[in-house]
Amino acid sequence: MALFNMKAVLLCSGLARRMDGQVKPLIKVGGREILYRSMRLLEKHGIQEFTVVVNKRNREEIERFLRDNGFKFEIVVNDAPERGNGYSLYLAKEKVSGKFVLAMGDHVFGEEFVRKAVRGTGLICDRNPRFIDPDEATKVKVDEGRVAEIGKKLEDFDCFDTGFFILDESIFDSAEKLVMEAETVELSDVVRKAKPQVTFVDGELWMDVDTPKDVRKAEEALFRESGKGRGDGFVSRHFNRKISTRVSMALAGKVEPNHATLLSFVSGVLSTVLLLFSIPLAGVLYQLSSILDGVDGEIARVTMNTSRIGGVIDSILDRIVDFLFLSILAVLTLSTKVEFFVAFLAVFGTIMVSYISERYKGEFSEGFYGRFSVFIPGKRDERIFIIMLFCLLYPALGTFYLFLSLAVLTNLRIFEMLFRLIKSEMYISGIDIS
Amino acid sequence: MALFNMKAVLLCSGLARRMDGQVKPLIKVGGREILYRSMRLLEKHGIQEFTVVVNKRNREEIERFLRDNGFKFEIVVNDAPERGNGYSLYLAKEKVSGKFVLAMGDHVFGEEFVRKAVRGTGLICDRNPRFIDPDEATKVKVDEGRVAEIGKKLEDFDCFDTGFFILDESIFDSAEKLVMEAETVELSDVVRKAKPQVTFVDGELWMDVDTPKDVRKAEEALFRESGKGRGDGFVSRHFNRKISTRVSMALAGKVEPNHATLLSFVSGVLSTVLLLFSIPLAGVLYQLSSILDGVDGEIARVTMNTSRIGGVIDSILDRIVDFLFLSILAVLTLSTKVEFFVAFLAVFGTIMVSYISERYKGEFSEGFYGRFSVFIPGKRDERIFIIMLFCLLYPALGTFYLFLSLAVLTNLRIFEMLFRLIKSEMYISGIDIS
Repeated sequence: MALFNMKAVLLCSGLARRMDGQVKPLIKVGGREILYRSMRLLEKHGIQEFTVVVNKRNREEIERFLRDNGFKFEIVVNDAPERGNGYSLYLAKEKVSGKFVLAMGDHVFGEEFVRKAVRGTGLICDRNPRFIDPDEATKVKVDEGRVAEIGKKLEDFDCFDTGFFILDESIFDSAEKLVMEAETVELSDVVRKAKPQVTFVDGELWMDVDTPKDVRKAEEALFRESGKGRGDGFVSRHFNRKISTRVSMALAGKVEPNHATLLSFVSGVLSTVLLLFSIPLAGVLYQLSSILDGVDGEIARVTMNTSRIGGVIDSILDRIVDFLFLSILAVLTLSTKVEFFVAFLAVFGTIMVSYISERYKGEFSEGFYGRFSVFIPGKRDERIFIIMLFCLLYPALGTFYLFLSLAVLTNLRIFEMLFRLIKSEMYISGIDIS
Repeated sequence: MALFNMKAVLLCSGLARRMDGQVKPLIKVGGREILYRSMRLLEKHGIQEFTVVVNKRNREEIERFLRDNGFKFEIVVNDAPERGNGYSLYLAKEKVSGKFVLAMGDHVFGEEFVRKAVRGTGLICDRNPRFIDPDEATKVKVDEGRVAEIGKKLEDFDCFDTGFFILDESIFDSAEKLVMEAETVELSDVVRKAKPQVTFVDGELWMDVDTPKDVRKAEEALFRESGKGRGDGFVSRHFNRKISTRVSMALAGKVEPNHATLLSFVSGVLSTVLLLFSIPLAGVLYQLSSILDGVDGEIARVTMNTSRIGGVIDSILDRIVDFLFLSILAVLTLSTKVEFFVAFLAVFGTIMVSYISERYKGEFSEGFYGRFSVFIPGKRDERIFIIMLFCLLYPALGTFYLFLSLAVLTNLRIFEMLFRLIKSEMYISGIDIS
């Protein structure tokens, strides 16, 4: 993933910006220090070396934090932090060359924000900020792709300063001139002088954290982001994730991801046992376990504590629960051979939908759904929701229709997936079947 | 895969070495020219540029072949091929620098041989040659890791010259001196003078092709190699592959890999239809389709015509046949709910064994069995063999025992796989459960 050979400068010399007596960059959001979060995200994109500008008061604490977490860093101490963060940037002059990242040490940046921002140039701006107070934020007027004006009080502006930059050493010329002329030099003064290019990264997570309320807001945003784009189906996107992210928020810090996996598995197994007593209730518990199924991954991602083996184990346990629920329900409620054959088809289709996408990923190291669109629904969240609905209607509506629906849906989906593979193979082999 | 930034020199200037009027390096073995085979294998290991030494007579034909196949090559013409292949090597002097591969253009080299040989240094030797006539081959005496003596008539020797070298430009000094002194300079003369290091690559496929019998022998060896190390179970290693490689040999050149996939799928589906008429015969046909299942991959690998999507499609079709066979057999022969539950377990276990290894590979881009050993059998070839045995015993022995065996075997295997994953996760998390 080492796309760049860039260093990063992190500004942590802000004065009097303490909340509950804590050094701001070291405030924990979602179980991790703000600085830890930014640095690990930058590392993910190939930025391995950091220059951290601190002040005399927070130096010791920040240095200990950096050392304890094994980051590769250099410390620059700003002895006169009252001279502004433009002056702090200037002090990093000797530490970087070529292109480098500059980021505010007390801003929370989301995964997607950083992924996009490191590919940008100049000042990263947001035309559609979702997590900040526009009155408090720094506005930017853009002209021909460059900063025309910048400030908190701008009336006419195009976007907001995210506190994240991709700069090169030429920025220090502007900073140096200002430092020679004025006692206080803010970063916006440097930007106003240098007029760097602007890159838009709109609507992603970035925010300043000033109050405990901000912490809460940032955590909420992180959890919401953690549930996005995980290959969810319709039900998960519009229903399950809205609940699971709230549960995750409540459990984060108290429960390990692996324990959340276990919790979801146990509730799934309990739902299969509950089938023996009440099919409608079992259906509801099964749907609940499907919601809980999102929690482990969400907590893991927000606390930056993901485990790939944990993910594999979670998938296998999902398949086991799905199988147990369907086969026990079939044995309890079906009787004829035709009915059982349909149930076999439903069980087969249920596992195969996952099998195909995994087999593909194992071969190509990219997701099946990244390459092919599949129209017929049948993902786990969708299947379980359908199962719950049928269970609630039981015994008014027999479960045979549930198995029939699942058998048709999942096997049609399998054939669609297979068809797309065969078509692409024929395309590769040069046979035109379109 | 570009491990090296090496070029390769291929010696194709041998005289009067024609078989059936063909240029030797262009003789087809397993549907591909000898030279094509070597060059594609070298490309797989990062060698992208080739210097091909030819003579006046074969120049046109070899040049056309190289151009038609899109290789990146330079031609060097040896106008005096009678001066020997040491002289041919010398003529390539200006074309290479640093480390380079030198290989005989008329030798067939196997996949494993090349994989190991490119990691070696000096002359690649074989202490345990399996495909050559020792009387005809060039022997090497080794002393302190270097060539001490080399020749066809050596009485006291340690290994055989494979015709594959990893050299550096210093070899041309030795070659030059000999070329100045003598009219005829063989490669063994150069080696005798330069005394390069020796790397042993024992027992892998490499051979000279002189007669139609040699072509047949090389093809057999290629097919045998193509069936090895594909994650086969016990039955496949000791039974299925021995038959499938013979079938592949008979079909290669006549049947495309994709058609072989279809053939195996159709015979599998036919076996499920045959269940309606005769369970023992269906079992035999199922086992036959399992043998045929190896043919597509074998033909694809030997003819260097592999398709990754083809592999994915093949896996999916295997799962579909396995499912159909078991579920139809269950519906035909089982009746009680307990029996059906056991059949559900057998179907589930059958697919899950494959699912887990694919899910793992999708996450880690390495095979499950490359990292973990699994003791409990249950791979496809093993399962199908067991199924056939039970089918042959039907109706003397009821199929319930078949489903019970499969259910127990596959699900125990699943738990073993899951256990190994959980254990490694705990190990990673620092929990000691050993």
